[in-house]
Amino acid sequence: MTDAAATDRPAALTTADALRRFTRDVFFVAGLTDEHAKIIADVLVWADLRGVDSHGVTRIPMYLRLLDAGDLNPAPSITIRTDTPAAVVFEMDRAAGPVAMTTAMAAAIQKARGAGIGFALARGTTHTAALGYYTSAAARDGMAAIAFAGSVPMMAYHGARAAAVSTSPISIAVPGGDHGPLVLDMATSVISAGGLTQARRAGHPIAPGLALDKNGAPTTDPAAAMIPRPLGGHKGSALSLMIECLTSLLASNPIIADAVKTGSGRHKQNGLALAIDVARFADPTMFRDEVERLIDTMKTLPREAGVAEILVPGERGDRAFERRSREGIPLSRATVDDLTRVAERFRVPMP
Amino acid sequence: MTDAAATDRPAALTTADALRRFTRDVFFVAGLTDEHAKIIADVLVWADLRGVDSHGVTRIPMYLRLLDAGDLNPAPSITIRTDTPAAVVFEMDRAAGPVAMTTAMAAAIQKARGAGIGFALARGTTHTAALGYYTSAAARDGMAAIAFAGSVPMMAYHGARAAAVSTSPISIAVPGGDHGPLVLDMATSVISAGGLTQARRAGHPIAPGLALDKNGAPTTDPAAAMIPRPLGGHKGSALSLMIECLTSLLASNPIIADAVKTGSGRHKQNGLALAIDVARFADPTMFRDEVERLIDTMKTLPREAGVAEILVPGERGDRAFERRSREGIPLSRATVDDLTRVAERFRVPMP
Repeated sequence: MTDAAATDRPAALTTADALRRFTRDVFFVAGLTDEHAKIIADVLVWADLRGVDSHGVTRIPMYLRLLDAGDLNPAPSITIRTDTPAAVVFEMDRAAGPVAMTTAMAAAIQKARGAGIGFALARGTTHTAALGYYTSAAARDGMAAIAFAGSVPMMAYHGARAAAVSTSPISIAVPGGDHGPLVLDMATSVISAGGLTQARRAGHPIAPGLALDKNGAPTTDPAAAMIPRPLGGHKGSALSLMIECLTSLLASNPIIADAVKTGSGRHKQNGLALAIDVARFADPTMFRDEVERLIDTMKTLPREAGVAEILVPGERGDRAFERRSREGIPLSRATVDDLTRVAERFRVPMP
Repeated sequence: MTDAAATDRPAALTTADALRRFTRDVFFVAGLTDEHAKIIADVLVWADLRGVDSHGVTRIPMYLRLLDAGDLNPAPSITIRTDTPAAVVFEMDRAAGPVAMTTAMAAAIQKARGAGIGFALARGTTHTAALGYYTSAAARDGMAAIAFAGSVPMMAYHGARAAAVSTSPISIAVPGGDHGPLVLDMATSVISAGGLTQARRAGHPIAPGLALDKNGAPTTDPAAAMIPRPLGGHKGSALSLMIECLTSLLASNPIIADAVKTGSGRHKQNGLALAIDVARFADPTMFRDEVERLIDTMKTLPREAGVAEILVPGERGDRAFERRSREGIPLSRATVDDLTRVAERFRVPMP
């Protein structure tokens, strides 16, 4: 949730529409369908609008590397492996994460309309991007929604000096009132992998206790910091381990054990989407009103010394969204350079 | 997960059977049915066996206070408010938490057998005790299971100097192999409310950063520490806030907003149980093998300096369970005194 402008001097200002068009064009030229390219553009630029630059268009070069390596399939054959009255497992055939998670959450919502609750697993996808996109979309459809993603080892397990579990994100969203959905979107690490990348690019030292270097020694050097530590020590890595079980093992596509054993950096992810149809359980208007009342209650609490304002989940992102929708999205020098290379390669005009 | 023996010199050693008989007798004499009294005994003594003394028989006096105050109904009329193909909402009529959560998880499992996934809300219950009891029981039935509980304000919201959200616990369990289920059971706070009580009884100072006093000032004094701080700052209190939405607001029984506004300490909780039938999604034997492989992978990671052993979720509890099943359950002087008063009041022999 770091604003690019705060960590890295913006080199350009662009609009969401221009960034979406650029992203769509790049992935379309790279071989994806128009529909899939548009989904990736929507998901990445949504993160940029919300100030989560680590999960925005800065990811385009990574997605292209995955395409080049054959880890991301531009023309996946998405099939259903398992179908129950309330659940579905998709074989995503290495589809782009935004395509897979959009498909999974839509199916979870559909199941929830029938069964009260719906569950979908996205087996064998790639970087799932900002999970809050899918949960907040579900919340706008009247759902309480949860999403998890299981991925390759990149976070330290508590007590270990090695990357052994993923920074497995957790997102939970519920319908809200005037503010829109209330959306939690967090990594199970104390700093996200994207946060480390941004610190490295900006050359800013990393606070003590957040990261290890490649040999597993604690470091504050942004050039050396490679492995985020788990949130709250054992709790963060335990959550991540359980998410590997709930996503990868339930989808019969284990990631962690093999990757730790072989040291393979081969990228893959599995995702989980859960939707609960609020209207089947509570009066939707009362539910929304209660969410707003809860927000108001938190925001008017007595504050600790030095705390200017109490924030609720997603509030910083909501504000960035409003500001950036109005004023434009700042891009750092490093991002502009990256996107320029992408534009040249695919002969697509820069945004 | 603090062993009583480590924080508070044991004054007596008893067996699980004796403690269960005592607990059952107390609640039976107090007006609960034999069945309900036995469930409470099972759940509380399970926590004692696993070394989670804060959630064991030390809670008996609290449960009796709730009975005396009319907050816990000894003869609840448990009814179904909502029933869908995959979900059920129970009105628990202030049933004891262990009774409510056992009922909810059993219903979630039953729904999962039909629909692949099952969801149950326990509306209007009381202290739900150790959530790991319900999730690990579900895991022994072949389920991946999740449980949450929403409760009264007792944890600081990030940035606030007041108890504003619950220490809302999260438990996740999956079937395992020889080790039994892999079970995460954690509070969303850096220290549990029970942990503060134990420190107060033992007179041990509390580490900096864990708690606030009743005025919201940081403290390490165990006599003054009243309000646990959230896990990882904003992430812990955000998780807790979302759990209030997923449990209390979905069950149409909001707790937090009113309690913060009125300062009412009236006890109530809402619980959530989710069960996923592993066999519908994966080969159950392979799933268990993969869980074991994941455990082995974590345990053989290179360790940080000073770390004697890497632990997986629930491992400390599993070991305490084996040791205490064999050697008995130690009770602190304060617990013996509490239980003696209970024994005298209900004319039940001490364990």
